[in-house]
Amino acid sequence: MEKLFVIKIGGQVIDDESKLTKFLKEFSLIRDKKILVHGGGKLATELAFKLNVPQQLVNGRRITDEETLKIAAMVYAGLINKSIVAKLDANQCRAVGLCGADGGLIQAHRRVNADIDYGFVGDIDAVHDQFLQSLLESGISIVVAPITHDGKGQLLNTNADTIAQEIARSMSRHYEVQLVYSFEKSGVLLDAKDELTVIPRIGPDYYLQLKEEKKVFEGMIPKIDNAFAALRSGVSSVLIGKAEELTDLINNKSGTKITND
Amino acid sequence: MEKLFVIKIGGQVIDDESKLTKFLKEFSLIRDKKILVHGGGKLATELAFKLNVPQQLVNGRRITDEETLKIAAMVYAGLINKSIVAKLDANQCRAVGLCGADGGLIQAHRRVNADIDYGFVGDIDAVHDQFLQSLLESGISIVVAPITHDGKGQLLNTNADTIAQEIARSMSRHYEVQLVYSFEKSGVLLDAKDELTVIPRIGPDYYLQLKEEKKVFEGMIPKIDNAFAALRSGVSSVLIGKAEELTDLINNKSGTKITND
Repeated sequence: MEKLFVIKIGGQVIDDESKLTKFLKEFSLIRDKKILVHGGGKLATELAFKLNVPQQLVNGRRITDEETLKIAAMVYAGLINKSIVAKLDANQCRAVGLCGADGGLIQAHRRVNADIDYGFVGDIDAVHDQFLQSLLESGISIVVAPITHDGKGQLLNTNADTIAQEIARSMSRHYEVQLVYSFEKSGVLLDAKDELTVIPRIGPDYYLQLKEEKKVFEGMIPKIDNAFAALRSGVSSVLIGKAEELTDLINNKSGTKITND
Repeated sequence: MEKLFVIKIGGQVIDDESKLTKFLKEFSLIRDKKILVHGGGKLATELAFKLNVPQQLVNGRRITDEETLKIAAMVYAGLINKSIVAKLDANQCRAVGLCGADGGLIQAHRRVNADIDYGFVGDIDAVHDQFLQSLLESGISIVVAPITHDGKGQLLNTNADTIAQEIARSMSRHYEVQLVYSFEKSGVLLDAKDELTVIPRIGPDYYLQLKEEKKVFEGMIPKIDNAFAALRSGVSSVLIGKAEELTDLINNKSGTKITND
């Protein structure tokens, strides 16, 4: 099977122009088929502040009210998505920027939760893999904004990590998928404050041990859990590491590889 | 040749939820291939006001400084474009929302003007018609936001009427193109204040006469000039009329038809 990279880029990299530029240059150099999924960065929060739209967080998760959803659609699917596409094109990497509503790409439903109303937050039901495949086969790379829809006309806000994972899972029917979580850190670290303590390889047993010894810091746990879930559902490999070192990361020269064995 | 509708929808219709809903329903019912080009509406101006970004107008044209460009990308390519796509999908009309940077769709250059610096305003050089064609042939309708790019990583603000015209012209190599300017009025009116004075048909001679008699109101002149230019460059017909009466408009039951004979 042909290789496909599904690469998530984290918010802090998007906020840093020089890091983003370096990342996009390295992304453009990948000769295999590729999909970029981007998060939001600080821009949405800043815009909400300027517009006096209060941001509610419950258990670290943002509540997406109607005004916050509009801001997310503007910032993620508009400004960030199109800026990335234009920059990729300048790097001779032809790309198309999509959100989950485009071509019915990602069908979701509004999150059901008995205790908390998360507002316009979408949990994913299905990825329209044939649509992605036909674009990729025509030689176009794809840039996905973390906005989905419910098929009834409602846009929804969806976590970019989850989108990357669901796209990777769904595309593993057609390609040998490498899922990459790239962000500001060098990989999964033994000491969250020391960039030199990258763990090069984590299998299921070692992960259990790390969690028991509380050596994996909180923010990484959902990422690694997602990574193992992706591997179980057909994704070939999951890499976690620094966005500006994308080439090294996908060549296993830096970062952490999550593996099933 | 197969028929293709290129339909521009004006800003005031976008601002009116019930008119927009009716328009999108009628758009979804068109069984021929179709492209929707949308303008911006009041939303961008309102957002600029809320964010204290002063809007400069020179000769009725907005100067697009860096902050205004960001607002345009957010509002046009983000919120409006994706909301339309999600609503079309709910009407069983699968669509993909693009700006001119996506897939290298519309290549433009920053406007050169000795007297006025319009800022980040793009004049169109080329439309990537094969990309549009391949999407249309796969059964997807296209929604285009009035944002272009210069191929060097810079997004640009471009008039939606001009985008519709350039897409129509370029696609007339592959399809029998019907260019439709739909907006809040019933068509070209003899009396701008009386919706019952629609001129059903305007040819070149009659247009000259109307202009000499100053019977065409100012705002319509660039639209009609564009219409004749489109006809000269291969577009089959140009229709101008009410967005909420789209079905009647494209069936020549309402509105104004601009014709070369």
